[in-house]
Amino acid sequence: MVKHELAKSGEIQWVDRIRRLAGNAPGMELGIGDDCAIFRPRGSPEDLLFTTDLLIEGTHFRRETHSAEDAGWKTLARGLSDIAAMGGAPRFCLVSLALAPWTDTRWLDGFYRGLLRLARRTRTVLAGGDIGRGRVFTCDIVVCGTVPRGQALRRGGARAGDAIYVSGALGGSALGLARGTGKGWKRHVRPEPRLALGRFLRRRATAAMDLSDGLSLDLRRLCLASRLSARIEPPPVFPGATLAQALHGGEDYELLFTAPPRVRMPRACEGVPLTRIGTMSRGRPGAVTLNDESLPPLGYDHLKLIANR
Amino acid sequence: MVKHELAKSGEIQWVDRIRRLAGNAPGMELGIGDDCAIFRPRGSPEDLLFTTDLLIEGTHFRRETHSAEDAGWKTLARGLSDIAAMGGAPRFCLVSLALAPWTDTRWLDGFYRGLLRLARRTRTVLAGGDIGRGRVFTCDIVVCGTVPRGQALRRGGARAGDAIYVSGALGGSALGLARGTGKGWKRHVRPEPRLALGRFLRRRATAAMDLSDGLSLDLRRLCLASRLSARIEPPPVFPGATLAQALHGGEDYELLFTAPPRVRMPRACEGVPLTRIGTMSRGRPGAVTLNDESLPPLGYDHLKLIANR
Repeated sequence: MVKHELAKSGEIQWVDRIRRLAGNAPGMELGIGDDCAIFRPRGSPEDLLFTTDLLIEGTHFRRETHSAEDAGWKTLARGLSDIAAMGGAPRFCLVSLALAPWTDTRWLDGFYRGLLRLARRTRTVLAGGDIGRGRVFTCDIVVCGTVPRGQALRRGGARAGDAIYVSGALGGSALGLARGTGKGWKRHVRPEPRLALGRFLRRRATAAMDLSDGLSLDLRRLCLASRLSARIEPPPVFPGATLAQALHGGEDYELLFTAPPRVRMPRACEGVPLTRIGTMSRGRPGAVTLNDESLPPLGYDHLKLIANR
Repeated sequence: MVKHELAKSGEIQWVDRIRRLAGNAPGMELGIGDDCAIFRPRGSPEDLLFTTDLLIEGTHFRRETHSAEDAGWKTLARGLSDIAAMGGAPRFCLVSLALAPWTDTRWLDGFYRGLLRLARRTRTVLAGGDIGRGRVFTCDIVVCGTVPRGQALRRGGARAGDAIYVSGALGGSALGLARGTGKGWKRHVRPEPRLALGRFLRRRATAAMDLSDGLSLDLRRLCLASRLSARIEPPPVFPGATLAQALHGGEDYELLFTAPPRVRMPRACEGVPLTRIGTMSRGRPGAVTLNDESLPPLGYDHLKLIANR
C-alpha cells in the first residue's frame, strides 16, 4: 500500500526497503504493496482493510482550478477506490489536515462538504483526524473497510490464461486535466469509486486493483504481483480522449481485474460496462504487450501533468 | 480525536462542527473528541483503537535541531501515547509522508530507523503508507491498537470525588525545547509512551488521557468531557524545569488519570512514579484550580514555542 510516485522517479527501492523493514505480526494478513493492508481481528468473521492516501496542494489538486468541494470529494474517493479494488465495504475514515496559511473557514467548510457528500452516499463515517499548520494544504486520509474473512481481492492472484477486464472507459481524467472543462473534467474532479463492482467481483475475480496511475503502469504492477505477463488490445477510450490518455493517463479510478475464462462476466455491473481487454500469460513477469507490441509503463506523473497545464 | 492546535487559535468551533457533521454508524463506538476512535469488529472480543497524528516540519520538529531518527521516533511515540491513554496495546501503524525538496535518502533512512526502533520495542507493525511530494516534510501516522471489548479508557468517565493522578514528572519537554540540550532535550525528542501503565489502568482508572498539550489545558479537557471541575496541587516537576513549564508545557506524553479514592494506586508502575495531584469535584465544568486559585488553560502552542527559540 505504499504508493508509487517516488517509484516513478527511480526511487522504487524505497518501497522495497520499507517493505523489508516493516516485518509482520499476528493478525496482519497483508502489509505494504497492495491497495490496502489487511488486518484480521481476533474472532471476527470479517477482515479489515486499510488504505491511506495523501492529497497535496500543487501535486494532487490546485487551488486555482479545483474547488474546495472537489478536493474533499477526491480525497475520500481515492481511498474508497482502494477499498473497492479489494472487494470491501467502507466503514469509516480518519482525515488529517495540514492547513496552509491561505486556508480559511469557508474553504474548509467546502472541503468537508464535498468529502461528507461522498461519505454519506457510501456509508463511510468520518471518525476523527488531526489538524495542524503547514505551508501547503496537505490532507492524509485513512479509510477502513470490511470484507468477509479471507475474501479480499489482491493483485497477486491472477493465473496464466485468465481474462483481463477493465470497468468503464479510460483516459477521461487525463482528458479533463488537459482541457480543464467538460465531462472529462468532471471525471477528473469527481471520480466514482467502483464499490458495487468490487463487492460483485469478490468470488469471481482472481486479482484486482484500481486504475490510479494509468493502465500501462498499473497492469504492469498486477503482472509483477502475479509473476505473469499480459497481452492486451486497446481498452475502451473515454469519449474525446486519445488512446495514449487511456493507456497512460491516471486517476480514472476504474477497476482492473482478472478472472478465469470459464467465469461468465456480465456486460455491465450497476451500469458500469465491463470489457475484456486481454489475457494473462506466462513470460517475463511484468511484461505487457498491446497488439503484440511492447507497452512501456509510462503511467501517470502527477507533478509533470500539473506543471504542463 | 480531532486534535486541538486550531482550538487554541480560537477555532475550537471547527472541532465541534466536524463532530456534528461526522455522524455515527454501526461498529463505531466512539468518534471525534477523545484520544482515539473506537471500532468494534463484528464478533471480536477486542475493540480496535485508532489515532492519527501529524508531524509537520517547522511545527513539530525543525531540521536544524531534530535528527531524522528523532523525528521518526517522535512520530510513532505520539500515536502510541494516544493508544496508551486508552489502555490499548499497539498492533500496527500506517505512515504517510509528504517529502520536502530537501528530503534525501539518507534522511528518510534515518527517519524510518528511529520510527522502527520504537516500533520493534512496542511490537507495532509498519503496515503501509503513502509517499508524495510537498513543500515541507509532513508525516501523518495512524496507529491501531486493541483493547478488550468495552475496556477502553476515556476522558469522560471521571466522577466527583475521584483522585487525580499524573505519571512521571512534568515540564521536561518544555525545558528541553528551551535549552536544546540535556535530559530535558532527550525527553523532548524521545518521549516514552506509557503503554504498560495504560494497560495497568484499564480496570482501575475511571478516566485517562495523555499529556500532549500541557497539564492546564489537558486537565481542562478531561474535566469538560467528564462535566466536572478539578482542584489540584503542583504536580511533580521535571528536574530543572519551572512550575510554569510543568503546568503549561506540552509534549511530556505522561498519563493524566482519575480513580475512585478507594482504589489503592501503587507509587509506581514499571519504574514510572504515579502521583496524586488533586480531586475531581462538582462545579463549573472545565474549571481547574491550583492551590485554590484559578488555573488558566495556557497549554502548549507548538508554533509559538518554536518561533521563540
